[in-house]
This record gives sequence, structure tokens and C-alpha cells, in this order.
Amino acid sequence: MEPIRVGLLGLGVVGGGTFNVLARNAEEIARRAGRHIKATKVSARDLAKAKSRVGDAAEVVADPFAIVRDPAIDIVVELIGGDTLARELVLEAIAHGKHVVTANKALLAKHGNEIFGRARERGVMVAFEAAVAGGVPIIKAIREGLTANQIQWVAGIINGTTNFILSEMRSRGLGFDQALADAQRLGYAEADPTFDVEGVDAAHKLTLLSAIAFGVPVQFDKAYVEGISALSQADIRYAEELGYRIKLLGVTRAREDGIELRVHPTLIPAQRLLASVEGAMNAVMVKGDAVGATLYYGQGAGEEPTASAVVADLVDVTRLHTADPEHRVPHLAFQPNALSDKPILPIEAVTTSYYLRLTVHDIPGVLADITRILADASISIVSMIQKPRDEASQADIIFLTHEAVERNVNAAVAHIEALPTVLSEVTRLRLETLA
Amino acid sequence: MEPIRVGLLGLGVVGGGTFNVLARNAEEIARRAGRHIKATKVSARDLAKAKSRVGDAAEVVADPFAIVRDPAIDIVVELIGGDTLARELVLEAIAHGKHVVTANKALLAKHGNEIFGRARERGVMVAFEAAVAGGVPIIKAIREGLTANQIQWVAGIINGTTNFILSEMRSRGLGFDQALADAQRLGYAEADPTFDVEGVDAAHKLTLLSAIAFGVPVQFDKAYVEGISALSQADIRYAEELGYRIKLLGVTRAREDGIELRVHPTLIPAQRLLASVEGAMNAVMVKGDAVGATLYYGQGAGEEPTASAVVADLVDVTRLHTADPEHRVPHLAFQPNALSDKPILPIEAVTTSYYLRLTVHDIPGVLADITRILADASISIVSMIQKPRDEASQADIIFLTHEAVERNVNAAVAHIEALPTVLSEVTRLRLETLA
Repeated sequence: MEPIRVGLLGLGVVGGGTFNVLARNAEEIARRAGRHIKATKVSARDLAKAKSRVGDAAEVVADPFAIVRDPAIDIVVELIGGDTLARELVLEAIAHGKHVVTANKALLAKHGNEIFGRARERGVMVAFEAAVAGGVPIIKAIREGLTANQIQWVAGIINGTTNFILSEMRSRGLGFDQALADAQRLGYAEADPTFDVEGVDAAHKLTLLSAIAFGVPVQFDKAYVEGISALSQADIRYAEELGYRIKLLGVTRAREDGIELRVHPTLIPAQRLLASVEGAMNAVMVKGDAVGATLYYGQGAGEEPTASAVVADLVDVTRLHTADPEHRVPHLAFQPNALSDKPILPIEAVTTSYYLRLTVHDIPGVLADITRILADASISIVSMIQKPRDEASQADIIFLTHEAVERNVNAAVAHIEALPTVLSEVTRLRLETLA
Repeated sequence: MEPIRVGLLGLGVVGGGTFNVLARNAEEIARRAGRHIKATKVSARDLAKAKSRVGDAAEVVADPFAIVRDPAIDIVVELIGGDTLARELVLEAIAHGKHVVTANKALLAKHGNEIFGRARERGVMVAFEAAVAGGVPIIKAIREGLTANQIQWVAGIINGTTNFILSEMRSRGLGFDQALADAQRLGYAEADPTFDVEGVDAAHKLTLLSAIAFGVPVQFDKAYVEGISALSQADIRYAEELGYRIKLLGVTRAREDGIELRVHPTLIPAQRLLASVEGAMNAVMVKGDAVGATLYYGQGAGEEPTASAVVADLVDVTRLHTADPEHRVPHLAFQPNALSDKPILPIEAVTTSYYLRLTVHDIPGVLADITRILADASISIVSMIQKPRDEASQADIIFLTHEAVERNVNAAVAHIEALPTVLSEVTRLRLETLA
């Protein structure tokens, strides 16, 4: 049988990795797929460099549109990133009846509904395993492996940069700035780290996980996004003392009245497997009503781990490209006519547990005032520690709460901060037991 | 569209769970599959009990052959276990053109080649996600999620009973017999625990993982199987002191000259995620050349976790049952005409690291004699600890070795045991760094 002909848009880190894996493991892949899969055409900005890399194995072109319109290409792999040119290219590829494989979470989190809609009309597949958690087959696990379940929640460490920084802050006692500088020096963080550090990348990925877990359209604009740049060493230490670790989690949870979709630093119990995920590794927990809690772990980024997911998608598409579209797994896991219109809940309506830290004048009655305010807001306390500060007659107080609604916590925090005996703003972190 | 009609053979733990999940999550499953999936006929030994359980939802029959031959059944779910009647039923279902879903690892580990061969001839699917690690979609991950990779090794905690016992032995300092009794009392172990405790169940599962990882036929009869019943508290403590935990691992690894396929108690570094898998939980690590190390974790047994995998298979089969068989994922991950004839290596040819413990007369020269024997057998030592015993002038010595070939270790052990200063047999455990 003729090989499946793949056009690669972009020969950067993941593009180069995909080219390498397809070449090195060509026989192993064909043994599985029943057919060879060949990158026959590649677009790259630096033609000379790209030619020296791919040799005679593939044609190299400067214009990616020459690939998406080429009748000799069966599947287009979009690896140029961004959501402007990439969107045009993907839509053009679909319009030309080509299947698309992409690692582009930003593109799908923002334009997924449009792209999947067009793909459906045209009867082609858009596969995106590489968009979340690198080579870990988490999209496949949720979309196909857990179809028996009502998914209850998904919680994941889905950004390696921030997990590396948090691991360094905890294990080496570094401040955020120092840990970030280390991450940049070691290649784990970009020169402009905003996208990772402020949680945007994780929110793109979480948006996709939420859609396939609950059968809702992608709704990145509704996600709550909070990064780790304001996190202090003190909170990491206090969390540890209380038996918790702080991770940047993406959490999406089905509630009666809507779906939670939020990325923020989160305390999790130290004995959870997820708490032991260190460095740049990724891991996602999925809780289903039948299966219980499951966890998926691996490298969330990098040349070949991401290429592993791209190529797995190529094998899936190769298997199914001549099949009737109705036999394929729906893009967002649920049949397009069966999507749910459950709203994404605003962060004020989210229910979770909290870690609250504040500095007080250590005089009689302070604690009584604070706990009264919490009680009045229906917030019950799980544990409390008080720590003397270097400054005379001052103390840090840390509360862990049971589950409460965020708007109640906001109101209580405002009241607490207005007390004359409270000397600091209240540092508020969310806590998930993951049970 | 008409529902897909499922015949359930067996209404025990997993059968009952499957019936429940199909009923409770009927709408969620149909939203994904694009079609309702209904258990319309059930066979059970106790008709009255079965009828009271399924009500009017399904026909209950005593004779399972009445299901596998029924033209009104599309998919047969075999959940009666064993490998005699189950084999007949599965072959008969295939002969009648029915797709089969089974959780029966013993059946497939022993008769998989025959069953998959017949299924291929008849153009039907035999799906077995539930056969390994309960609801964790590990078959799908390896068979479809990691198709880009040359798999290097798979190592898993794939028997909950033994992991529960080992967790109890470590955390509570119990002996094997006591921990087993606890496991039996709590329902984690059978009255006759041999099958779990001696590693047979894990070897069945590992046989399937090995086949789909490396594209070889199932070869249970070639597996090396060693259980945990001889494991002593002393070794668990010494392992801990050296930074390791002992788990019953199934390990299958591709070597130049063959494939390792072995189940045995294994020291693994305490900081590995796999070492933190406690109680009856399961976890499987898969190392691929592109993706690196990945891990999959969840409940490995139980009514609804296992049902989760059965129903996921039902959804897959529902999607693909009208598709051309060539579009389906091959039973053993690789195209049937592309299976490898690499042999399974005998245990003597396995390469791994070792933990050796022995009791000696604590007199000058003992250590020199032992280390000389090890060096002569090309076994190099990573670390050594010596522990005085209560008996005067006796000591326990523990060695950890680098990788060595088992037959060399056997020869060295025989020499060491022949030394007059060596007072005990050598306790030999294998050690995997999982790097």
C-alpha cells in the first residue's frame, strides 16, 4: 500500500522531533498502522537549515499554504504555533479535505469550536493529543478510555515550567524570581515567561480537558487564570508544615449548576501521588463515577515526547481516514449534537477549600473576631496554626477551611482585613483534597 | 438508531457492575457513542437472584450458549472467568460473528493466539481493556497512545492483593502470614490466595502487556513467576534503609536477543512514583524511546472500576463494528502479519540488578572472599551494609549490585553459599532502577 503522505508545517522543536521519530521508528510504526507514514513535504522559514536537516527525504518549501493546498498531502501536521496564521492554515487544510494533527492548545482553546465545526462539515479529523501533557495519552484516556463514566473532575499539573519553578522553590528554598531565573538558564522557561508563569498555557490545556470531560464547547474566555508569580516562600513552608504541597493545578469540576474551570496555585495533600510529581513533569488526575480516581504521568513537553503524541495521532488518522466519519471518536468526545450547555461558573461561584494567612497584633480577642467573621460567612475551619513573628507582639495565623463558596470567602476576607488588629492583607490560596 | 444489544455472560462482581454502569450512565454513554448500548440478555447460575437484580431490563437465562448463539445479540461480554467454559463460549460467540469483550486475563494469556486468530478470520473484535489494571486504560495507552515508540520496557504493579499485603508488611511491620490474614479479612484476598500471592495473576496480565508492547504472540508458558510468600520482614526493612521499597512487579523488557517476561518481588527506588503506589492500587510504567517514561494509575479491581473498562470497550466496538476490519486497532497492537518471533528469554538470561542478603561469621577475610567471588562472576557492587546480629560474632551482609546476568549471579551465589564462613542461604531479590 502507498504510504500516507504527511505535510509538516514547521520544523522547530516539535516539528523536528516528529520528523525524527517518523524516520527512526518507520518500521515499528508501519508494523502497527499497517501502512507506512511518511513526512513528504515540510515548510520552514529557514530553507537551507531545513534542507540540511531533512535531506532528500522530504520536499522543503517556504510557503505553508503550498502544503495545505497540495493534493498529494493526506494529513497536515500544524506545528507553527500561535493562533493567527495557524488558524488560517488549519481552516484552509480542512477546506481542502485534509485531516489535521496539531499540538496547538492556544489555537484550539480559542478557535476550537470553529475548527471542529468546519472539520465536521468537511468530514475530516482534527487530532490534538499533543496539545495537552506532551506524550501522555491523556486526551485518548478521557475521550476513549473512560467513556463509561460520568466524569466528576479533572485536576492536573499541565505546565512543566511552573512545576519546575515550584519544585525548586520548595526543595531549595528559593524565591520565585530566583527559581524563575534558574528555569530560564536551564531552558525550562522562555525569556518572556508570562504565558507559562501566569497560568495561560495551563488554562488553554485545561479548556480542552474540560470540553472532552464534560461535553461542553471550548470556552477559554470563561476560564479563571491565576499564576504563581505572587507565591511566597512563606506559604510554601507553611503548606509543607500542614502536610500539603503547592502546585499550579488546572481544575475542572462538574457541579449541579455549572462547570468549574480554573487554574491557580493549589495546596494538595503531600501523600497524594500528584504531590510527588516534581520538576518539569506533568500529571493529570481524572475522577469518574465508575472508575474512581485515575492518574496519567509523563513528560509534558520536549521534542520527542510531544512528537510521540503527534505520531500517535497520525496512526489513528491513518487507520480511520477511509472510514465513515460517524465511526470516528467525536472531536470533543461527545457527539456534536449532544453537547451540554451547562455554563462555566464564575470564580465567585466556585466551591473549594482555602488556605488563609494573615498577620495580626497578637492580643487577646483577635482570634475570636476572625473566627466569628468566618463562622458568619458559613466557612468552617479544619485547622489553624499561629506563628510568632520577629516583630514583637505580631503573629502569623494560618487557617485551613472546609469547602466554602468563593464569594463567601471574599466577603469574609474583606471583613477580616478591616479589623484594626489585622496588619496584613489576607493571603488566600485554594486547597483541593483530590479525594 | 436501534441500541446495540449486549449479552452478558455472568452476573457476578464485574457482570453486576457492568449492568449497573450501563444502566446508570446510559445517557452519558449514548452522548459519546452516538448510540444506546443495552444489556438485553444475561446469563447467570442463580436465575431468581439475577432476575431480581436486572428486573425487566434484560432477559435472564441459565444457559450462556443461548446468548452466544442468539442472532439478536451484537456483542458478547464474557465475565464468567476460568479458561475452559469461557474459551468455548468465546470461540462459539466468534463463530457466530459476534464481537467479544472480556476481562479474562487467564483465558487470553493462555489461549489468546487461538482466540485472536479465530476473531481475525471471522472479522470480529475481541476487546480486553478490563483484563489488566481494572479501569485504567492501559491497553489503550500502549496499543494506541504510544504507537510512535519503540517500547523499551513495561513495569507494573498489576495485582492489588499482593500490593496490599506488601503495603501492610512495610507500614505496619507485619509478617507475610499476618498481612495475608488481614487482606483476607478485608476482602482483598481470596480464601485460597495462591493465584494472587504466587504471582500467577500478575503474570497473566504481564503476558498481555508484553504482547502489545513488543508485537509478540502471548506466551504465558514462558513467563518467569515468583510470588511474595517467601518475603521476610527483614528484607523489607533493609530495603527501606537502603532507599528502596519492595513491590511485586511485572517486568517485560526488550533486549537485543529476546524479551524478558518476569514477575517477582522487586526493589525499586523509594523516590519513584511507582514506589508510592500503596494498598490495592495498580500502576503501570511504560518506557518508550520517544515519550520517555510514562505512568498510569488507578484501581486495579472491583466492581465498577473493572466495569468502566468493559463499557469503554463496548463503546469502541459500537463505533467500529460496521467498519472495515482493516481500520481497527489490531488485537495485539501490531498487524498480525508483522508479529515478531523474538524469543522470550529464560530467567537465567535476564539482566537486572540484585539485592543479596546473607549471614556470616564476622571474622576477618569473609568480605574479601565474597567480593572476590562476585568480581570473578563480573558482578559489580553498588553498595554494601553490614549489620551485627543478636548471635555473637555473626552479621548480616547486604549487597546491592549493578546490572548482571542472572546465570552469573546464580553461579556466584552457589560459590558464596559453599564458603564455610557463610552461615545462611543467600536471599536474592531483583532490583530495578526504572530509569
